[in-house]
Amino acid sequence: MGQGLLKSTLEAGCVVVGGTCRDPEAAALSLADLTREGSITLCTDMTQLAEISDVVIDFTHVSSVADHARALKGAGVAWILGTTGLSESEQRAVDDAAQTIAVVQAANFSAGVTLMLRLAREMGMALSAERFDAEIVEMHHRQKVDAPSGTALAIGEAVAQGRDVKLSDVRAPVREGQCGARKTGEIGFAALRGGQIVGEHELLFTSATEQITLGHRAFDRRVFADGAVQAAEWVRGKIAGLYSMEDVLGLS
Amino acid sequence: MGQGLLKSTLEAGCVVVGGTCRDPEAAALSLADLTREGSITLCTDMTQLAEISDVVIDFTHVSSVADHARALKGAGVAWILGTTGLSESEQRAVDDAAQTIAVVQAANFSAGVTLMLRLAREMGMALSAERFDAEIVEMHHRQKVDAPSGTALAIGEAVAQGRDVKLSDVRAPVREGQCGARKTGEIGFAALRGGQIVGEHELLFTSATEQITLGHRAFDRRVFADGAVQAAEWVRGKIAGLYSMEDVLGLS
Amino acid sequence: MGQGLLKSTLEAGCVVVGGTCRDPEAAALSLADLTREGSITLCTDMTQLAEISDVVIDFTHVSSVADHARALKGAGVAWILGTTGLSESEQRAVDDAAQTIAVVQAANFSAGVTLMLRLAREMGMALSAERFDAEIVEMHHRQKVDAPSGTALAIGEAVAQGRDVKLSDVRAPVREGQCGARKTGEIGFAALRGGQIVGEHELLFTSATEQITLGHRAFDRRVFADGAVQAAEWVRGKIAGLYSMEDVLGLS
Amino acid sequence: MGQGLLKSTLEAGCVVVGGTCRDPEAAALSLADLTREGSITLCTDMTQLAEISDVVIDFTHVSSVADHARALKGAGVAWILGTTGLSESEQRAVDDAAQTIAVVQAANFSAGVTLMLRLAREMGMALSAERFDAEIVEMHHRQKVDAPSGTALAIGEAVAQGRDVKLSDVRAPVREGQCGARKTGEIGFAALRGGQIVGEHELLFTSATEQITLGHRAFDRRVFADGAVQAAEWVRGKIAGLYSMEDVLGLS
Repeated sequence: MGQGLLKSTLEAGCVVVGGTCRDPEAAALSLADLTREGSITLCTDMTQLAEISDVVIDFTHVSSVADHARALKGAGVAWILGTTGLSESEQRAVDDAAQTIAVVQAANFSAGVTLMLRLAREMGMALSAERFDAEIVEMHHRQKVDAPSGTALAIGEAVAQGRDVKLSDVRAPVREGQCGARKTGEIGFAALRGGQIVGEHELLFTSATEQITLGHRAFDRRVFADGAVQAAEWVRGKIAGLYSMEDVLGLS
Repeated sequence: MGQGLLKSTLEAGCVVVGGTCRDPEAAALSLADLTREGSITLCTDMTQLAEISDVVIDFTHVSSVADHARALKGAGVAWILGTTGLSESEQRAVDDAAQTIAVVQAANFSAGVTLMLRLAREMGMALSAERFDAEIVEMHHRQKVDAPSGTALAIGEAVAQGRDVKLSDVRAPVREGQCGARKTGEIGFAALRGGQIVGEHELLFTSATEQITLGHRAFDRRVFADGAVQAAEWVRGKIAGLYSMEDVLGLS
Repeated sequence: MGQGLLKSTLEAGCVVVGGTCRDPEAAALSLADLTREGSITLCTDMTQLAEISDVVIDFTHVSSVADHARALKGAGVAWILGTTGLSESEQRAVDDAAQTIAVVQAANFSAGVTLMLRLAREMGMALSAERFDAEIVEMHHRQKVDAPSGTALAIGEAVAQGRDVKLSDVRAPVREGQCGARKTGEIGFAALRGGQIVGEHELLFTSATEQITLGHRAFDRRVFADGAVQAAEWVRGKIAGLYSMEDVLGLS
Repeated sequence: MGQGLLKSTLEAGCVVVGGTCRDPEAAALSLADLTREGSITLCTDMTQLAEISDVVIDFTHVSSVADHARALKGAGVAWILGTTGLSESEQRAVDDAAQTIAVVQAANFSAGVTLMLRLAREMGMALSAERFDAEIVEMHHRQKVDAPSGTALAIGEAVAQGRDVKLSDVRAPVREGQCGARKTGEIGFAALRGGQIVGEHELLFTSATEQITLGHRAFDRRVFADGAVQAAEWVRGKIAGLYSMEDVLGLS
């Protein structure tokens, strides 16, 4: 992801001033090819990076979130946050920083997925649970260790939100053996794995007489990096606040 | 379509008081099985039908539109209008009637297609023509004589509207032989035919790094009749005006 | 299924002489509309039916299989057998009857599924387990109580057979939560449920650089009855033996 | 394609001794990164290349085919030929060379497409033109200038061959406007364009009651190079003859 971000940022014509890493010397070598002209500052500490940056793009580990919130808030630097799996207290640190700085937070920075989540919510609202059975199927590369994918769950949450219910209340149990008939209002999930598929998701609403589907395929991991860079360009000059990719894409 | 409407109306618990047809005697025989209890009035003239109706569902020929507009406006009866291919003057007659009575006009009464048109417009708005190539593919039964389908064209118009252009300016010429590279901003159409497929449509937005798709399948022609009956139930008690299926489904 | 078979048989121009049922009087009433001209003999016993038939189509309960085998073998009448879930001894009774009479036995009489099973075996043979990950996804109506479908399992068995392994040795465990990476050679299954989908199956082989898929959709339950009647017409005059739908379709 | 072949060949552990090009000096520079260790001989003439090679992989222009046939036949070197659009006399030159040397000729070297062509032929054979309408839809990147793709046409030819007819006799005219109902036995084509899609093909057989589909997606242009290299490894030591990718994959 780091390398993808570096390429996307440079291609977008932005200046990359630096980054954080555990071992700056080793990283410098591996980045030599990518950055070529001009050196970039590699540091182990966000406070140092914040001093020289306008915007920080952050896809690091969830354990760094609270520290980063403090450092970026202190320096008044905008924050593009793609780290996922935050605890409630970590999310509070983000919300608190957003009182002082502009933060764009998203689980998936692809324009297509962002739009898909919004449309899924509208579909949930328009297509009643009594008539339309909602199912989500995703496919990813053979190395993926969890199922369903975070994005599949986010799509399910969007549908549930549109129907004014909680996903945890309507999520269908996995189907295997004598699992019984489908319950009205359930949202079902299925996961396929194979090859090097970057990520495919399909949402299906099926009634007795019609079916409406919404699908997304990522061809290249670069789609996530490109979206984060787009968010970074958008956020410059924005007032403090917690923004989403929907804001960046002008969908709200 | 007439038989489907009759079934849907009866199943919805509405009272069917009558209909128009060219040869009432012959029609009476063929309807005997469907209506069973209670007779329905068959007449050749809309003025007569309007006198005994609360709502008229109209999927007749375009040549009747102006007459029907006059008759229903005169009688103060709500009008569900599914006839397509109206000239400008015929559309004006509909608009004029809608000053006095409630009219629901749509090219396709399926809830799924109605929602699809709305989402297509939003996708056109969110996914820029510079980055996302829009294509529409449809499949219908082997008897269908025209291509692309009216619904495919309506989806194309929705995308064009979202992009603030006219479909006629951006519709791609049909691809065959040495047809040249795709132009930026074009909207392409393709038509498949086979078996007894009721109607399938897919809209694809493809960029260099991702693809987002929206699809619809009608399993049964009944989906159109069901939607018209839903419109008829919705329109009772509404004030004069020209309504769409989006209004009926609460999507506006 | 019984009503579908009756319609398909009459439409194919065959003479329906009779059938078995638990309560002949009640059945006679419900069949009156379908058969119209000419009566058909309803009996509770296969021996009686066998006496007046050239071919018997049998989709009854597995507990009748041994009795039917005896009766049809005794009468020298051909047997189209769609009953599933046979024990080893029941299958032996079928095999034994097939020494004397012509038997067509299949789990699914659709021409499309029969072809799909054959192609799935060839794909398993041609697309090595080292490079191509095989997955099967199916969708059925909301009332279906088991997963994956019998046909999905049959497809998996066909792939396994092509790869010269046993499905039970390579069937992937259902994916949920932290389920780990996909293992080489595994065959995965996923089940979707919704609306009144008659039956859809897709087999996907995915490598790092390409994907090849084979799909089937049944639009109408009639496809199974039509196939059984096709088998009945094909089997007349055939010598004793156990035949499959592949034989009927000339695929062997 | 040349660069892809070079990478695939090196990764397969083969020794690349040389290649032909118009300007050896310029090519040497652009290949420096790829070949690194050891130099490769670049020449403008096939006779020279043939002298130092065991197998030649040839994706050059159709105008070179006759010359290459002569040179490789003279040197007794095996020939992997991916050039398309051969005239009858050019094809005769290939056939003639195959009397003396081993030639693998294919329009598409992907394992998936090769298998798809074979399965398409079987499907054409098994699914009668009277009941199953065959349609082919393909999608490619926005730069592609012709439609339908060569591979789509090859799939159509495979179906036609299975049905024992000529594609030119049953190819459906492109559908646009009032094009009339589908004719029994026709094979229809549709082409979508967008983004950077490497190549997707789907073959659909649709009857009144079921549909069976066969699809292929190439994720990476490398799939074609990989197949050519696989053919090169397979052909070593084979006796003279004209072979296909079906032979290479053991499908014949």
